[in-house]
Amino acid sequence: MSRVHVHNFSISFDGFGTGDGLTLDAPFGHAGERLHEWMFATGFWRSMAGEPGGSRGVDNAFGELYNLGIGAEIMGRGKFGPPQGGPWTGVGTDEEWRGWWGPNPPFHTPVFVLTHHPRPSIEMEGGTVFHFVDASPEEALNLASQAAGGLDVRIGGGPTTVRDFLAAGLIDVAHLVQVPILLGRGVRLWDGLEGIESRYDIEAVSSPSGVTHLTFTRR
Amino acid sequence: MSRVHVHNFSISFDGFGTGDGLTLDAPFGHAGERLHEWMFATGFWRSMAGEPGGSRGVDNAFGELYNLGIGAEIMGRGKFGPPQGGPWTGVGTDEEWRGWWGPNPPFHTPVFVLTHHPRPSIEMEGGTVFHFVDASPEEALNLASQAAGGLDVRIGGGPTTVRDFLAAGLIDVAHLVQVPILLGRGVRLWDGLEGIESRYDIEAVSSPSGVTHLTFTRR
Repeated sequence: MSRVHVHNFSISFDGFGTGDGLTLDAPFGHAGERLHEWMFATGFWRSMAGEPGGSRGVDNAFGELYNLGIGAEIMGRGKFGPPQGGPWTGVGTDEEWRGWWGPNPPFHTPVFVLTHHPRPSIEMEGGTVFHFVDASPEEALNLASQAAGGLDVRIGGGPTTVRDFLAAGLIDVAHLVQVPILLGRGVRLWDGLEGIESRYDIEAVSSPSGVTHLTFTRR
Repeated sequence: MSRVHVHNFSISFDGFGTGDGLTLDAPFGHAGERLHEWMFATGFWRSMAGEPGGSRGVDNAFGELYNLGIGAEIMGRGKFGPPQGGPWTGVGTDEEWRGWWGPNPPFHTPVFVLTHHPRPSIEMEGGTVFHFVDASPEEALNLASQAAGGLDVRIGGGPTTVRDFLAAGLIDVAHLVQVPILLGRGVRLWDGLEGIESRYDIEAVSSPSGVTHLTFTRR
């Protein structure tokens, strides 16, 4: 069985993993890009974008782990989009929506999108294949683990999906990044997770950039 | 006017400043003492308790600021207790309750307790005098500022009181301590504080003890 990781998952001080009012123009709602600015400044991110430079400190060290040893991702419908949810309509013609990431998404593996409205798989450039499954966390993990070819599975978000997998006891390693902003509204990561610290060794490392990296490693 | 500080105010990862189910035997409810263990290990705390030893690192450095330059405290009725709230009945005879801290409380200054049920002031040993006021945050701060004799005012908690003073824009310096536990329920500090980061310089410093010190300093 693959190990199950969360990487670079940003939350605000008040625990929101995304903002309120998600639209096609604002995939994180009123949060904008503020949850992810720490990552854009890293060498890891710059090199993915084909740009030189970027920081090489603790933010980058965590950032670089994103694809390391990962053979498949599971994401929620809320991350894949489009924001209105429901059946695959309303964005041009049915089933036109192919994610936020353009023709060559940054995953480069099979990606299992949790949805109550399955549709045919989509093969993208660069190795990403989106599969759409109406499945419990356990069922999705079995599928992803088989597809990962002996590598690990990343739970990609959004917050509801990470929370569901944490609550189901399916996460081995979670790397969360606490950003010093107060969003006030949006989707909370932490609801209903009382006592999960008993199952994990937890480290907190604050970065000169202002964020704090939290790592949960299963005991 | 005094400057207004919060010191050593602990919250869980999920933002709870106290637990659920507060009773006379469990002043922090199901949180127990878990939010404060980091402080009990410091030299600051040990010396207050008349004990030798204790840590002398970053937790202690922040801890020691608690009474430094403070001339008065404001606390909520929820911190003063008893837990059932309402009129001052139900704990032995009326008005018998004199706080959780024994005859010589650790404040050693005037303390203004916010309550909708004013009662006569109580003079304790060691300089602590409890005053009971039915007042807005601004009104209470005016009273405390006058009583502080040119020194600063500490907002002592609980979470509702700290949140109200933050929301009213009355806090100059807040030191919060994020403890790596998930309480899941209780009283949240962060509700309704969207965007307050724009008014503060914020630092995060993680400690080897596992907690992270967050400081908000008004710009």
